Order: sequence, then structure tokens, then C-alpha cells
Amino acid sequence: MESWLIRNATVVTMDDDGRVLPEADILIEATEIAGLWPRSEAPQNPPEARAIDAAGMVAMPGMINAHTHCAMTLLRGYADDMPLMPWLEERIWPFEMKLQEDDVYWGTLLGIAEMIRGGVTCFNDMYHYFESTSRAVLDSGIRANVSGVLLAFLPDAKERLERAIEFAKQWKDKGDGLLVTMLGPHAPYTCPNHLLDRVIEGAHEAGVGIHIHVSETAQEVTDSQRDFSQTPVERLKDIGLLDVSPVLAAHCVHLTDSDIATLVESQVGISHNPGSNMKLASGTAPIPKLLEANAIVGLGTDGAASNNNLDILEEARLAALLHKLQADDPTVVAARQALCMATRGGARALGIHHRVGQIKPGMKADLVLLDFRLPHLFPRHDVVSHLVYAARAGDVRTVFVNGRPLMIDRQLQTLDEDEIFGQVTERLKRLVQ
Amino acid sequence: MESWLIRNATVVTMDDDGRVLPEADILIEATEIAGLWPRSEAPQNPPEARAIDAAGMVAMPGMINAHTHCAMTLLRGYADDMPLMPWLEERIWPFEMKLQEDDVYWGTLLGIAEMIRGGVTCFNDMYHYFESTSRAVLDSGIRANVSGVLLAFLPDAKERLERAIEFAKQWKDKGDGLLVTMLGPHAPYTCPNHLLDRVIEGAHEAGVGIHIHVSETAQEVTDSQRDFSQTPVERLKDIGLLDVSPVLAAHCVHLTDSDIATLVESQVGISHNPGSNMKLASGTAPIPKLLEANAIVGLGTDGAASNNNLDILEEARLAALLHKLQADDPTVVAARQALCMATRGGARALGIHHRVGQIKPGMKADLVLLDFRLPHLFPRHDVVSHLVYAARAGDVRTVFVNGRPLMIDRQLQTLDEDEIFGQVTERLKRLVQ
Repeated sequence: MESWLIRNATVVTMDDDGRVLPEADILIEATEIAGLWPRSEAPQNPPEARAIDAAGMVAMPGMINAHTHCAMTLLRGYADDMPLMPWLEERIWPFEMKLQEDDVYWGTLLGIAEMIRGGVTCFNDMYHYFESTSRAVLDSGIRANVSGVLLAFLPDAKERLERAIEFAKQWKDKGDGLLVTMLGPHAPYTCPNHLLDRVIEGAHEAGVGIHIHVSETAQEVTDSQRDFSQTPVERLKDIGLLDVSPVLAAHCVHLTDSDIATLVESQVGISHNPGSNMKLASGTAPIPKLLEANAIVGLGTDGAASNNNLDILEEARLAALLHKLQADDPTVVAARQALCMATRGGARALGIHHRVGQIKPGMKADLVLLDFRLPHLFPRHDVVSHLVYAARAGDVRTVFVNGRPLMIDRQLQTLDEDEIFGQVTERLKRLVQ
Repeated sequence: MESWLIRNATVVTMDDDGRVLPEADILIEATEIAGLWPRSEAPQNPPEARAIDAAGMVAMPGMINAHTHCAMTLLRGYADDMPLMPWLEERIWPFEMKLQEDDVYWGTLLGIAEMIRGGVTCFNDMYHYFESTSRAVLDSGIRANVSGVLLAFLPDAKERLERAIEFAKQWKDKGDGLLVTMLGPHAPYTCPNHLLDRVIEGAHEAGVGIHIHVSETAQEVTDSQRDFSQTPVERLKDIGLLDVSPVLAAHCVHLTDSDIATLVESQVGISHNPGSNMKLASGTAPIPKLLEANAIVGLGTDGAASNNNLDILEEARLAALLHKLQADDPTVVAARQALCMATRGGARALGIHHRVGQIKPGMKADLVLLDFRLPHLFPRHDVVSHLVYAARAGDVRTVFVNGRPLMIDRQLQTLDEDEIFGQVTERLKRLVQ
């Protein structure tokens, strides 16, 4: 693999000291960040490497999409502004019933192309046909945690679960660490305890984590209290699911104070998905309280049917804006906290923070260069504030994952967008009638 | 002036029938839209005009920023995540005290460059040094309503008001209709009745409208009820200010049902500014109620110190998302309504809907082409939904105002960004110490 030297970038490190280096060089060797020098300390004889002139650009850690259903890009804009049940029953589920393996492959590639363009270098996915998702991940070079969705009401739910456990075991070492497998029981309300027991057992057997929706709607919590005399979080703790590591709980909108304490104590990773929660009117997650309690919080887009893009910079902005309003306090979820959720927080939530989430020697080289020579990012009083409150996914120019350039100067390096558009168009003829 | 023929665009007309034409041609002659033909009805002998191949692009009416303080781009990211009073007293006001005329000129040009890049073709401004703002408008070729800000606590408030009235009279016919002058009393709580009385008189004298902040915070309404036994809206109605036409009331966050009825009856234009209201934790404007009551509602960014960009596509998305959440109903503020506020609604709120806000023969040619050959805008199940829920300002490629191209293929045609960046950098050395 080639070595790369990124020169003269303003580097938002997201390290423990929150350092922002105004003019710095980053050396990438093989899959890792091998050096990071402020301009004045740059080595006299620079190592041999392909140079990128990043003057006027900002480098930051690649963003992490902590919860999505990537292939749902196929459904982008297919049904909006509808009440939840007709939306699911009349539009989303009938469409998904027709999905075949290769549809998921191409839909996932479409989402990956979008995410690379928007500076997302890792995503956490739960969907049907997880082998197709995984193939798309490996073919594109992006980083991902992948799990198949498990729903008790699907035919052969048990057989599907056994296949998912096998998948988790067999694929976990593929892709040089880029691919991490998990198990994906959809949610407490769609999975009875006997299924969840086997999920927990399977996770321990395979040595993998669990990705699950938790307390997304008020109804879900009410139903759980009626049926189990427990909140969904209490139930998951009770059956031992929270002893698995890592557990990524998506949404966590409706939590009691005791739920919050449990999530913190069990070190559960939380994916906050403000765009989806707003669009579906699910409610407002207690993010200021969770951050205050030192919970592990990342940001997710959810699927493109309920967002409708896969843009983590936008989710960071929504998180910063929404919670100020709901808390009636303009100081909560400051720009630095929002950007932390988009990067380090997501990495920690997915259990991959020893590899990614910061620009720091020894970490994997997952990083993003944004063009800041644009009027909406000028003047540069505060780069972190600009990233959260003013920047857009389209400002991303160059993206590295695991030391490999996936986009250079807005040109994708591993994916052919025209081919993806063509394949998706062809497949939609069958899927939409 | 050159004629232009835009070919094969998907045209979101925003006309009375809400038509979206999948493949259509638009003819621009002089300042106007001279023709609009679906592909099948295109004239055999196309008129002589410079052609733009817009295959794969979406054309929509230029967006309207119904409330901003454009030169506050100078303060972008200068102070965020702070409580309101320290933010104003320690950061914003001391900075503004140092502002000189040419600072406002260059700060306004910076904001105009940003707005053109983001598909905004008209803005409604209130700030210090309105002549500088107006010069920037005329030099750039954008459309704008301009008013000077009037604050009773400023020295020489009365003299300033007389100058503003003179300005409104003298500049109202400059710029071939691109420049519309208004009077800008800051807010009911910063302007005593004797000042507002003269504003109303001056507006009638000059034949211009009024731009004013109304009921932005709960405190403002409480104070008004304490001091006047009236809500701000009741007080403005009582003194006759709402008889001026047009009146643009910015924010309108805290309204009684009776206030809503008054605003509708008086045909007051409302600028909804969700980004600013969220960031400053001002509250949630009752937009679903206002739309239900047929109020005239546009979208604004407010100044870049409280947003931090001038991106109306983002405000449309925020409006659509925020009100679903707050109403606990995913069907309110549908994509079409949000896009309407960003275009026609804003035009009506500013009293310029006979000129702009739709793509329709006879209207002024203020329109925008967006690149839709991007993964986050694919597949194209619903173009209007994509504009509101998935598109970004950076997707805008080409912008016309009054028949003149201000940006072609992302190249600004009337402004030199490097010169603007240089001027702003130089001026900030004096403004920020």
C-alpha cells in the first residue's frame, strides 16, 4: 500500500485534549496514521509518500453512522409524511417483501457511495440479506459493523437466527478488520425472550456484539410495561442481554432515569438518531441527561426511508439544535459534544474506539478532508463550530478508510456510481409497480 | 441581455397546481421566464438562445430568505453555545460597535456569495448601514428587500429614522426592481410607540413596507403584557402598524390564538426561522396552526451568528422535521408545504409574489438548477421530497436572478470570492482583537 502525506491541513484531532492544530501534516503508512506534526515540528526530511496539499482544508476523523439500514436507500422518498402504521403496512413492508439478495447488494452500495461522499467512514447496519451487505462493504473498502435483522414474525425465524450466528462466526475475520459482525435482534417488542436467549448465547459463542432497537416510541414502552411489567431496558438487563459486549441500542428515546443508569452501568452504546426521531415524530431522546451521566452516545441516520439521507454531519447539527430547544438552554450539546458523538462517541458505541474515532498516531487511518475555501465556512472564527453549525456533507473532498483513499477530490476511487444507478434503476422496475 | 434555453430539466414549478414536469424546457428572455414546455410540446424551431443542458438536473424557483442580517456573516462561529445575554453583551454587541460602513458592504457580499451558491435568489435584510447593504445587492445582481435597523437606545435614533425614511424613498426605484426598500424598526420591545408612530407615517409617505421582529421569546411577550397589557401583536395592531403593507414579522414564536387570527386578517407576512429559534432556544413557532389558518409564511435564516449559515434548503428541512416532532404527528408540514414556504410563501410574505416564487411564463426569471446525479438524491421516487429531506445547498449548480446568471456550474459570475475573503480577513484584524 502507498504511503500518504497530507500537508498543511487544519486538523481537528478529537483527541483527549480536543486539540485543533491550525497547520499540520498527517502521515499515513499502510493502514495507520503514522505521524501527526504541527507545521513547525514537521520532519526535515519528509518520509517518502504521495503528498496531498490540504491548505485551506480541515481534516477530521471519519464520521461514524452508528445505526442504519443501508439498503433502504432503495426506498428514499418512496413514502413520506405518512402516519407510522400505513407507512409501514402499505408502503415499506410490501416493498421489502419483494427484496432479493442482489437488490440489497446494490442498495447498500448506493448508500455506501453516499456515505463516502459525506465523510462517513464506518456504519453500523441491520437488514435482511446480511451477506449481501457484507459483500458490498468489502467491495467498497468502507468499514462497517453488519448484522442481519431478526424478527420473530418472519417465517423460519429460528433457522434465520442460526444462520445469522454462523454468519457472525464465519465473516468476523474477513476484510482485515474492516468488517465486524454482530447479531441484530430487531427490538424487544418483535423478539420474544426465547429468541433473545438464543441471541445472547449465540453472541457469546461467536464472540460478537448485539445491535438492537430500544425504546424508540412511547407505545413500545407502554406495551412493555403492560406485558412484562418492565421497561424494554429493564427487560433486556433482566435476561442478560446487556452483559454482551458491545451492545448498540438504537434510538433510546423514551427512557426512565433508572433506564439511563442501567445503560451507563452496562456500558451500552446508544445511537441517537435525531433526524429519524423528528421525521417519524417518535419523540426526543434525553441526550443532555445521557451525556451528563457519561453514557456512550453516537449518532445514526436510521434508514433512508425515514431520514431521507445518510448524512452524519446533518445529524450532528440536528442534535446540537434540537436539544438546545427542548432543554430551553442554548448551552447544551455544544458543537464539540455533537462532533464527538459523530466520531469518537460512535466508535466507542460500536466497540471499535481502539481503532478509529481520532486522528492520532497508531489509530487506523480513517479520516476526511473538507474544503473550507467556501463562503459558508468563512471567516474561520471556530472550525469545530463551523463543522457542526455551517458545514455540509458536500464540503467533503477526500476520504481515507484504513489508509486507503476511497475518494480523492470528490472522485470515488472504489465504486462506479453510474453502474450503481443503472443497477438500482433496473431493479426498481420489479420492486415498484 | 442574452436569452437562455434550459433544456430537459425536471421542473418543480410551485404553480397553483403544484406541477412537476419530468422533462421540460424553460426559455428566459430579458428578465423574464418567456416559455415553459414539457418535452413533447417543445417548439419545432427553438428560439435563438444560449442553451443549458439540464438533463439530470432539477429546476425550481429561486429560494427566498425572508429574514436575515446578512453582514453578520462576519460573526459566523464567533460565539456559540452561550446564554442569550452574555452572548449579546460580551460578544455580539461589542463587535457590532466597531462596525464601519465598508465592513457591512464586504460582510454582505460574503453572505450573498453564500446564498447564491445555495440557491437563494432573494433575501430580506435588516441591519446597520443599509446603504452598504444596498450597494452590495446592486453590485452582485441578487434580489433583496433592504431595511436599516432602528433601535431606540441607539444615539440619534430619531435622526437615524429620518435617514432611513429618506433612504427608503430614494433607493426604492434603483436596480430595476431588484432592490425593494423597507423600514426596519427592530422590535416592539426596543421601539417605543412614538418611534413606531413615525415609522408607520414614514412607511405610508415612502410607500414602503415594514420589517420587524415579533414575539421571538416568551420573555418579550410577558414583558409586553406587563408594560402594555397587550401582546406584541395586539400592540402593533393597536397602533396601526399592521395596516402598512407589506409587514414582514420575523420569528412569531410565541403567539396566542387571537394573535394568529390578527396576523391572518392583517395579511402579515411571517418569517419562520427554525434554525435560529432552535439554536437560541427561543421556542417553537406554531407553524402547523398558522398554515392551517392560511397565514402567509416564509422561511428565514436569521443572521449567521445564530444559525450559522444562510441556507434556506436547510431551514425547509428543519421546518418539516421540527413540527412533526412537536405536533407528535408525522403528517404535518409535508415536503410540499416546506418547499412552498421556501419559495412562494417567502415571496408573498415580502409582497413580491407577482414577480417571483414560481416557474411560470411572465414571472421574473429567478430560478435554480440542482444537480440530481448524486447518490443521496437517488433513486428519484419523489423530487419534492428529495429537495426537502435529502438535498443540500451544495447540490445547486446554476442560479439565475432577473434573467441574469449569477452562477453557472458552480462558478460565481458577478462576485470574486477571493477578493471578498481577502477584504473580510483584513477587516477582522480591526474588529476582533
